[in-house]
Amino acid sequence: MTPYIAVIGPDPCDEQVAAWCEEIGRRLARAGAVLVSGGRGGSMEAASRGAFEEGGLTLGILPGTSRAEANPYVTVAVPTGVGEMRNALNVRASDAVIAVAGEYGTLSEIAFALKTGVPVVGLGTWKLSKENREVEDPIVRARSPEEAVTLALGLAGGPATRRRGPASG
Amino acid sequence: MTPYIAVIGPDPCDEQVAAWCEEIGRRLARAGAVLVSGGRGGSMEAASRGAFEEGGLTLGILPGTSRAEANPYVTVAVPTGVGEMRNALNVRASDAVIAVAGEYGTLSEIAFALKTGVPVVGLGTWKLSKENREVEDPIVRARSPEEAVTLALGLAGGPATRRRGPASG
Amino acid sequence: MTPYIAVIGPDPCDEQVAAWCEEIGRRLARAGAVLVSGGRGGSMEAASRGAFEEGGLTLGILPGTSRAEANPYVTVAVPTGVGEMRNALNVRASDAVIAVAGEYGTLSEIAFALKTGVPVVGLGTWKLSKENREVEDPIVRARSPEEAVTLALGLAGGPATRRRGPASG
Amino acid sequence: MTPYIAVIGPDPCDEQVAAWCEEIGRRLARAGAVLVSGGRGGSMEAASRGAFEEGGLTLGILPGTSRAEANPYVTVAVPTGVGEMRNALNVRASDAVIAVAGEYGTLSEIAFALKTGVPVVGLGTWKLSKENREVEDPIVRARSPEEAVTLALGLAGGPATRRRGPASG
Repeated sequence: MTPYIAVIGPDPCDEQVAAWCEEIGRRLARAGAVLVSGGRGGSMEAASRGAFEEGGLTLGILPGTSRAEANPYVTVAVPTGVGEMRNALNVRASDAVIAVAGEYGTLSEIAFALKTGVPVVGLGTWKLSKENREVEDPIVRARSPEEAVTLALGLAGGPATRRRGPASG
Repeated sequence: MTPYIAVIGPDPCDEQVAAWCEEIGRRLARAGAVLVSGGRGGSMEAASRGAFEEGGLTLGILPGTSRAEANPYVTVAVPTGVGEMRNALNVRASDAVIAVAGEYGTLSEIAFALKTGVPVVGLGTWKLSKENREVEDPIVRARSPEEAVTLALGLAGGPATRRRGPASG
Repeated sequence: MTPYIAVIGPDPCDEQVAAWCEEIGRRLARAGAVLVSGGRGGSMEAASRGAFEEGGLTLGILPGTSRAEANPYVTVAVPTGVGEMRNALNVRASDAVIAVAGEYGTLSEIAFALKTGVPVVGLGTWKLSKENREVEDPIVRARSPEEAVTLALGLAGGPATRRRGPASG
Repeated sequence: MTPYIAVIGPDPCDEQVAAWCEEIGRRLARAGAVLVSGGRGGSMEAASRGAFEEGGLTLGILPGTSRAEANPYVTVAVPTGVGEMRNALNVRASDAVIAVAGEYGTLSEIAFALKTGVPVVGLGTWKLSKENREVEDPIVRARSPEEAVTLALGLAGGPATRRRGPASG
């Protein structure tokens, strides 16, 4: 089965994040994965550009109702008209997600992925803890774009980790 | 305008969380607020019970397609059939959210609220940080159910904080 | 169980349709039903006004993200941010729907109800046929607001007709 | 711009409908269009097979949460987890829709398309009228798969007809 891997991150983004995302996109395309993203600018555009330039298939799930809002490296653009709820559709469409840096939108995708059992690989992204007790880190940490891709592809195919029962609450 | 306040938290939940949520529900009902929740068990049932027993209106936005999945203290039950994406609808329906403890579902609601500019009050819930830089805590921390309700009602009505522009990414 | 009955129809609407919808709203409220609507103007406002004036509970499921877009007779307003897809949520929330006159939005709700097994009562609304074969009318026709309400309440409670298996295609 | 054309119809379907849909899929692929469908069996599988065998790109927007529910001719499968509400997402993703025969699901897509201004071409499908007044047929009728494709491609690109203002109600 072709793996579908989402790259989630900020829009706009700084040069470091753009370079990471483009490299992740390149490596995913070379591995034959479909790149899933929110289809817009910043990190989404960088990841799509990397995959596109390697001939990869890039799926962009858009918040608005017009295909024209996609960046030029999205090969399959899906307008949804559901606004920020499309973040959950990005996760639904993916076998694993790679979170790169990011703001609240990225956090919403991390959380929705954790809730629905989609593995999350993180590169310089959110850390999660609780006010009054220890929490084991649910994000698999990568130290480079290369490592993020290797981890995501491994987790995407892993029956033990994928689509496991949802955590409650 | 009647404030709509969501109480989000785990299902099932422990006694401490149930007691907090029930108290929050009671106080919201006395203040004339509509209590919004996911309509099911644990913390959602406790909050709904508290509000219901004070004669409050309780709105439960359900993941499945049957009204029968609501707990008995939900006075207006809305089946959606969109599964865990209903978490985003809970937030859309609310002027502020109170997060009590919670697991990944709660985290998804916190994140979606922060993304869409809905104020978040936290009681013993998630803490958010980033791997490589400082983040100002975006959750308004309460130390008791009473304080959580006071803060949420204040933020729900505050034009400066409510429905402010979404943070990017 | 309290029946939830949706009234679906045009916005704006003419005086005849407004009078019908208001009468339907009144009768539903007197019967103890929750009135479900799209929460905006025209037929939705007329039905909500009728129910509201009889002390009934009126649920408005809104297309946008602001509660302020609800008409003043909606007692529980649920902004969704999913645009016209909220028509499907209206149907999900209801045990039966009453279609009064209407344009394409009403047609979408009729169709979604038929697809998901929610009974549809029609008053001066769409007729459905096929290019090349006979179709039994799937809409239960009423000749007056009074009859529409009686039929809808009967069908809402009927286990044989409600939430039956979806028709294919 | 690449046109995205949805083919909507019944599942299961008879041989006539399957032959029509496969032919439509073939012709859309040869024209360079992306074929959009609900991704499952019957007419959706036939259309996808036709396009796939011509090397076309086929997008399947699925009701459930698993990519495995797609038919084998879907090249980009998007699980949504929103059930029959995915019908509206099919329409959102398309510049025009071709309705072939069909049951209530097809009707829901026709209606949602008409509501949101997406042109609808029909081949042996639903006819719409009203109880008490004449309605101009909003569906552009085709008499063959070839004609359906020609009409849909023409309407998809036509700025005068596409994404026009929504009809009310």
